[in-house]
Amino acid sequence: MLCRTHLVRLPSITAELFASVSLTISIDAMGGDHGPQVTIPASLACLKNNPDLKLILVGDETVIKQFLAQELAAVEDRLTIHHASQCVDMDESPSKALKNKKDSSMRVAINLVRDGVADACVSAGNTGALMATARFVLKMIPGIDRPAIISTLPSIYGHTHVLDLGANVDCSAEHLFQFAIMGNELVKALEGIENPKVGLLNIGEEDTKGNEQVKSAAKLLENSSLNYIGYVEGNSLNAGHVKVDLIVTDGFVGNVALKSIEGAAKMIGTALKESFNKNGFTKLVGLLAYPVLKSFKERIDPRLYNGASFLGLRGLVIKSHGGADFLAFKTAIELAEVEVKNDVIKKISQQVEIILAQREFA
Amino acid sequence: MLCRTHLVRLPSITAELFASVSLTISIDAMGGDHGPQVTIPASLACLKNNPDLKLILVGDETVIKQFLAQELAAVEDRLTIHHASQCVDMDESPSKALKNKKDSSMRVAINLVRDGVADACVSAGNTGALMATARFVLKMIPGIDRPAIISTLPSIYGHTHVLDLGANVDCSAEHLFQFAIMGNELVKALEGIENPKVGLLNIGEEDTKGNEQVKSAAKLLENSSLNYIGYVEGNSLNAGHVKVDLIVTDGFVGNVALKSIEGAAKMIGTALKESFNKNGFTKLVGLLAYPVLKSFKERIDPRLYNGASFLGLRGLVIKSHGGADFLAFKTAIELAEVEVKNDVIKKISQQVEIILAQREFA
Repeated sequence: MLCRTHLVRLPSITAELFASVSLTISIDAMGGDHGPQVTIPASLACLKNNPDLKLILVGDETVIKQFLAQELAAVEDRLTIHHASQCVDMDESPSKALKNKKDSSMRVAINLVRDGVADACVSAGNTGALMATARFVLKMIPGIDRPAIISTLPSIYGHTHVLDLGANVDCSAEHLFQFAIMGNELVKALEGIENPKVGLLNIGEEDTKGNEQVKSAAKLLENSSLNYIGYVEGNSLNAGHVKVDLIVTDGFVGNVALKSIEGAAKMIGTALKESFNKNGFTKLVGLLAYPVLKSFKERIDPRLYNGASFLGLRGLVIKSHGGADFLAFKTAIELAEVEVKNDVIKKISQQVEIILAQREFA
Repeated sequence: MLCRTHLVRLPSITAELFASVSLTISIDAMGGDHGPQVTIPASLACLKNNPDLKLILVGDETVIKQFLAQELAAVEDRLTIHHASQCVDMDESPSKALKNKKDSSMRVAINLVRDGVADACVSAGNTGALMATARFVLKMIPGIDRPAIISTLPSIYGHTHVLDLGANVDCSAEHLFQFAIMGNELVKALEGIENPKVGLLNIGEEDTKGNEQVKSAAKLLENSSLNYIGYVEGNSLNAGHVKVDLIVTDGFVGNVALKSIEGAAKMIGTALKESFNKNGFTKLVGLLAYPVLKSFKERIDPRLYNGASFLGLRGLVIKSHGGADFLAFKTAIELAEVEVKNDVIKKISQQVEIILAQREFA
């Protein structure tokens, strides 16, 4: 049975989840392909859904004010504008952004997390610049060598969490192990399960398969306290023969796999559309089938899975897809809300500390 | 416009293509999940489609004879049975198969290629054992360090050829370059195009993206005579923003990408089925839409893309999916026919020789 979406991200239950919890999130209002046109309506919708949420919109004050609609009144006391004079371009080099854009909406939004003014930050901006800036500003959790990007994919079992999705092009076994530790804590916190099933992405399930990094990482995982289920193959991301909660891989493989899935979905969608647009009869059938096709589309809507978390940093940063629309960006903010509410940074830091201590005594 | 399938593999044009060309293919009749039950009917169908084709069915003579139907008469003069007393198990270790199964249907089918009795061999058996045996028996083309597995994927532009799909878990830039040279010759021969567009799989299109192997391979490709178009991302396998004829990657990434696409297709198919099976109304709509959904399914039918070629060896070996059914195995034999007809091994060997000579003079 294919479950539609993240329970954790459904707006209908968000209000209940956050009852009497106060949380503040900074929004890079200028980031993404559509900027304030998308970030501001999505922010207002989230404020309406969660009475405990406070948002700080970071960016050009004049522009932001233009986009704030008259409906603002209802949430005004929980919305702040924080002026930032610069924007990071979507194709700007991370090092240049880091050097030259010290007053960018992205940087200032992250600064607010560092300074404890915000509990998390959400940006649809340039991924490389966001990662470099977040790492520079927030610093790493002691014991973690590299940050990783984690997100969720729909699967025939509900959904699967996957990391790394592109932060690291070369990973040692130790890096993969650290990703597993961090991902495991995130999945525990978000899903409310005790022992997430952790799989290592490989080109076969047999022990002999894979490269040296994967084989060594498997040994580290076998000897850990994680619920490691062994190697899983690429099809496990969406439809393996067993349910996996967390799949660990390096950023090169994870990124290619994620984009391969996007391409496959696009091709299949195109073929389906063309089949229904073939002639008068098929168009008529398509009209009749419209509600069914619409419900099908909603079940695998990537916008309901938007939002990737940067793990390994001392603060919460959520990356939204650059091309996110209203629904997608709203989903990313809701993910930030759930992560703050579940105190994931603290949980990850504590777990890393425990494991480091165990290693020292081993 | 999504084109349905390989022109090269359509049975309707096969006969015309092969007019007055004689070719012999050895079939590992015992290989695959279904063995002779699938391999023999598919072989007979290919013989009927192409009057110039000769097949050698390799395996247990008694078993093969049981499966040969009475319809054999029409093609009898072009069908030989070559007895082999052993079978390689689907989960047998490649090294054990190589050592202990010297009279397996797989090994003997490859021996026939080495001895010039057959022009190519087709097997649905254990991939690792087939690769190890083929490499041991046929040897490498001088100048090529490692064999690679190439196959085709459907795309919104028609289809894309991809290698390596799992033969090599770690590849240097030089290996990737060699894969590109071999793949390029195969695509030229199969598609009849002069300058296939060659892309290197990466996690972004910018020059700064990727690991050291990919960046160094890009330099080798830029300085080559190939029509190298640069980095492509995972979505280019099925639906990138430009058409690519050949995508080059290492076997780890290629295998994960291929299986990720399989998983995505399965999940989407499951969601579509469930949407039409939801209730009485949706089932009725599903009945009306049946011909449209059937034609959609046929357009992306993976059986029409079955058959991966092992490149880099001194003989032609085609690997069919282990779970192949009649149509899928028939497609793999047809691929072997097209590759023999186009003399791909000779073309690849010549091209490798030219490039080696150019390097020596450089």
